[in-house]
Amino acid sequence: MSNVVSKEVRLKARPEGMPKLEDFEVAETEIGAPGDGEVLIRNIWMSVDPYMRGRMYDRESYVPPFQIGAPLEGGAIGQVVASNSDKVAVGDYVQSMLGWREYAVAKGEEVQKVDENAAPIQAYLGTLGMPGMTAYAGLLRVGELKDGETVFVSAASGAVGAVVCQIAKAKGCFVVGTAGSDDKCKWLEETAGIDKAINYKTCGNLTEAVREAAPKGIDVYFENVGGEHLVAALENMRPFGRLAMCGMISQYNDTTPTPGPNNLIYMVGKSLKMQGFIVSNHFDLLPDFIRDMSQWIKEGKIKWEETVEDGIERAPNAFLNLFTGGNFGKMLVKVGPDKAV
Amino acid sequence: MSNVVSKEVRLKARPEGMPKLEDFEVAETEIGAPGDGEVLIRNIWMSVDPYMRGRMYDRESYVPPFQIGAPLEGGAIGQVVASNSDKVAVGDYVQSMLGWREYAVAKGEEVQKVDENAAPIQAYLGTLGMPGMTAYAGLLRVGELKDGETVFVSAASGAVGAVVCQIAKAKGCFVVGTAGSDDKCKWLEETAGIDKAINYKTCGNLTEAVREAAPKGIDVYFENVGGEHLVAALENMRPFGRLAMCGMISQYNDTTPTPGPNNLIYMVGKSLKMQGFIVSNHFDLLPDFIRDMSQWIKEGKIKWEETVEDGIERAPNAFLNLFTGGNFGKMLVKVGPDKAV
Repeated sequence: MSNVVSKEVRLKARPEGMPKLEDFEVAETEIGAPGDGEVLIRNIWMSVDPYMRGRMYDRESYVPPFQIGAPLEGGAIGQVVASNSDKVAVGDYVQSMLGWREYAVAKGEEVQKVDENAAPIQAYLGTLGMPGMTAYAGLLRVGELKDGETVFVSAASGAVGAVVCQIAKAKGCFVVGTAGSDDKCKWLEETAGIDKAINYKTCGNLTEAVREAAPKGIDVYFENVGGEHLVAALENMRPFGRLAMCGMISQYNDTTPTPGPNNLIYMVGKSLKMQGFIVSNHFDLLPDFIRDMSQWIKEGKIKWEETVEDGIERAPNAFLNLFTGGNFGKMLVKVGPDKAV
Repeated sequence: MSNVVSKEVRLKARPEGMPKLEDFEVAETEIGAPGDGEVLIRNIWMSVDPYMRGRMYDRESYVPPFQIGAPLEGGAIGQVVASNSDKVAVGDYVQSMLGWREYAVAKGEEVQKVDENAAPIQAYLGTLGMPGMTAYAGLLRVGELKDGETVFVSAASGAVGAVVCQIAKAKGCFVVGTAGSDDKCKWLEETAGIDKAINYKTCGNLTEAVREAAPKGIDVYFENVGGEHLVAALENMRPFGRLAMCGMISQYNDTTPTPGPNNLIYMVGKSLKMQGFIVSNHFDLLPDFIRDMSQWIKEGKIKWEETVEDGIERAPNAFLNLFTGGNFGKMLVKVGPDKAV
């Protein structure tokens, strides 16, 4: 098999503050044939996620930073078009971390087969994938959710938040969530079935809005946003409440550090637990997650929305949309046709 | 037995910002004879503690607020001078929450006998009492301390901090602590035996000072102070570190809420756990605490300092000293002679 020409998106410059399209470049590169034990994948879907912003800074973290001039990385679903691995066959649909490019070569054991009959394959980048698993581990293990408790979720219509909301509803909880538009709030109440959605852009005082929505207080707060959301959560937490810290998207593009909540002293008086987590530290829960999530999807308990940008060249736009509320539900990039073989 | 005249300290006005002597008043009151099942206690020692500042605000919390014109409350050690209870006899030394007064009547089951032969009786207000128990529960249960870890303690020479430091040393840990004077730092290193004491008033950048003292990072932070101390701790925490939130004395007298740490996002990236606690929720650990602490004291592993104000009239001064660093170790008020009977 001769080399294929593959478009890929590279980091051109480290963004300062809000990322710009000029921080990225689309380039063509030649991908050689897979070597021994390797496979050639043609990507079909790729994911953009808020955590990627962190990897654009040049600093030590739980994953190494992206390198200038190198292709970005991230979750992708593709089809195997050539295989020298006995783990994966031509035609298999696989998940990899080799997104932001049309073709990729990987070792057979670096990719995971996905069942294209269980759900639309792009669901493995959202509800059935890393965001869904993040919601599951964060809410149930880190947040120690008990049936029937009151849950507050920020960015509730996002890829993670929407799953958090619906797991909580499946567990018989009272669920309050925030989103940045009336459409998203409507979806949360009418489709996802949560008890009260708050448009944080128009509600006025968020602390008061949460108090009104959950007058008995919050047992578990699922944090995706930071800033005023965290202040409102702390103010409304019940004694022994838990705060599962998944992210703080409101601060990812800050050029100077933002002060934290001015009511953190509630941690003491209310005996609260605040715990940050990274989904990869909870992969022991994967079998439970797949079992429960498949069941809930089958029972119609989990709905999701997708926003799709078409073509690898649009991946930077898709990523930028994460920070402007331009997405509704899971933000995806369609890299190529479903059937690659 | 005829009535006794007892001086008591009352809250005259709710302090605004830093409490002033004028916020308190000393008054005389007549204490009647104990009724059925009751005892009359003559207080010998009383405790002042930072948490009392919180009870001077008129707000809902885990304990009700102090009332204007009523005597304050707090830990005290006294001797029983009259008893109609079969639980406690005349001459017994007892601990109660009826401090800030010379005499008090209590139900027999509301007071706890203390063993005057095991330690100086005032130790039951410090190392062998609530502050010691706070250190024990906070460090071992909330902080989940493991032998050999690195511990950072703020207000390390205080009544709670000094016990935290020495329990950690007894567990083979590397211990860094802060205090507000060179004398206190010297005591921490030379008497309490910690590895590095930092004078936070003269060290310059606290985050850098902690990094220098504990270059491998912190596993457990015991929080008594808040503000820059918390920022420095978060910056230096190791992945999966724990922050045991006991208090934030730097903020108790704030008239407007102080912003929180500007690096709280480390909670996510480092998978940190921050947990607030109230000692009374951990009283199931009391037998373990008494057993371990008595043993450590016997082995010479736990030292403590006391600062004593003489006479019930000086109790407000003693309390104020907590916020100005005017105490060294446990701040006590000697209310009356050791032998009351």
